[in-house]
Amino acid sequence: MKHLVIYAHPDSKSFCHAIKEEFVEVLKAHGKEVVVRDLYAENFDPVLRNKELKGNLKNMDIAEDIKIEQAYIKWADVITFIYPIWWSHMPAILKGYIDRVFSVDFAFSVNEKGEVKGLLTDKRILLINTMGASKDLYLKKGILSSIELIVDECIFKSLEMEVVSHHFFGDMTNGTDEYRKNILKQIKHIATGATNEINEIYF
Amino acid sequence: MKHLVIYAHPDSKSFCHAIKEEFVEVLKAHGKEVVVRDLYAENFDPVLRNKELKGNLKNMDIAEDIKIEQAYIKWADVITFIYPIWWSHMPAILKGYIDRVFSVDFAFSVNEKGEVKGLLTDKRILLINTMGASKDLYLKKGILSSIELIVDECIFKSLEMEVVSHHFFGDMTNGTDEYRKNILKQIKHIATGATNEINEIYF
Repeated sequence: MKHLVIYAHPDSKSFCHAIKEEFVEVLKAHGKEVVVRDLYAENFDPVLRNKELKGNLKNMDIAEDIKIEQAYIKWADVITFIYPIWWSHMPAILKGYIDRVFSVDFAFSVNEKGEVKGLLTDKRILLINTMGASKDLYLKKGILSSIELIVDECIFKSLEMEVVSHHFFGDMTNGTDEYRKNILKQIKHIATGATNEINEIYF
Repeated sequence: MKHLVIYAHPDSKSFCHAIKEEFVEVLKAHGKEVVVRDLYAENFDPVLRNKELKGNLKNMDIAEDIKIEQAYIKWADVITFIYPIWWSHMPAILKGYIDRVFSVDFAFSVNEKGEVKGLLTDKRILLINTMGASKDLYLKKGILSSIELIVDECIFKSLEMEVVSHHFFGDMTNGTDEYRKNILKQIKHIATGATNEINEIYF
């Protein structure tokens, strides 16, 4: 299985970065092929402009930077998104990755009746999020389930991709060292699960 | 009352643009002061980079482009966001406006206990969204209420701003002329309501 990791945190000293490093290390230790797309390091342009919006609708040429990202997605079997929750959603640089990369006739097709059909149905999606807020609080307020609806359902499942799991790690700003070490153990467990070839992955 | 309109659609021939035009025209016809920030026309940079992320945490200097946006927000009494729903959330250019402009010690303060206090509590927020999908379908699936939780509650109300109303207009890609004319009538009604000086605005 080929693994693509889409990572979007600006700070290489962040705990989100440590999570990405641990995740990738475990995959490699299992002998997996891994490509990491670090959107900040690539200086990815997240702004879907009019020419591209129209181009997508008219099935015109795809921009060169987007061709690269789409080729990685085509190549991958498992795609893991690692990013912080900012204002209960993803950083703009990653939102724009979705806006631009998941274009019509690549991620989905639309027939004459306006029905959408996913074109990347063999992809498995994993999501790992860090957040400053308490996970319990977000759970209690229904924010986590809303995020799952907005992100997992409305992006990936609407395109008929399989969302294997979505992990939230809260209290990033005030957690103890012990707490963080424990999260890295969980990441190891999640990454090990992601190397599983069988169809049903439990993590 | 001073009106700030934050607009984020790349296509000046879109119906979202027509909605923005109608909204602004009605405000002006009522003699209101209006400033429109057209994020695409301004070429707004939505990427919150590490220096700025760290700067926000350490209360360092605010970037020049952000100072301009913050001054408009300070100036305004009513702030209306007009944008299309893409992948059940806002375009990246607007998500990055939130990420960058709503910085600590401008939009909110955090005390030693980590408690957040809104600093723009006198602002009234209006949201107007266009979307390709059917509004009924999104309502039935719980997507609209999730958007309201993620956007209205988790951004604006968490900062103790008042969200006056949030309007969704669906079927943008297959609506009839009659349907669109009717939406512009509703926009006129919403904008007229927004000119109301009294504390309770019903629209």
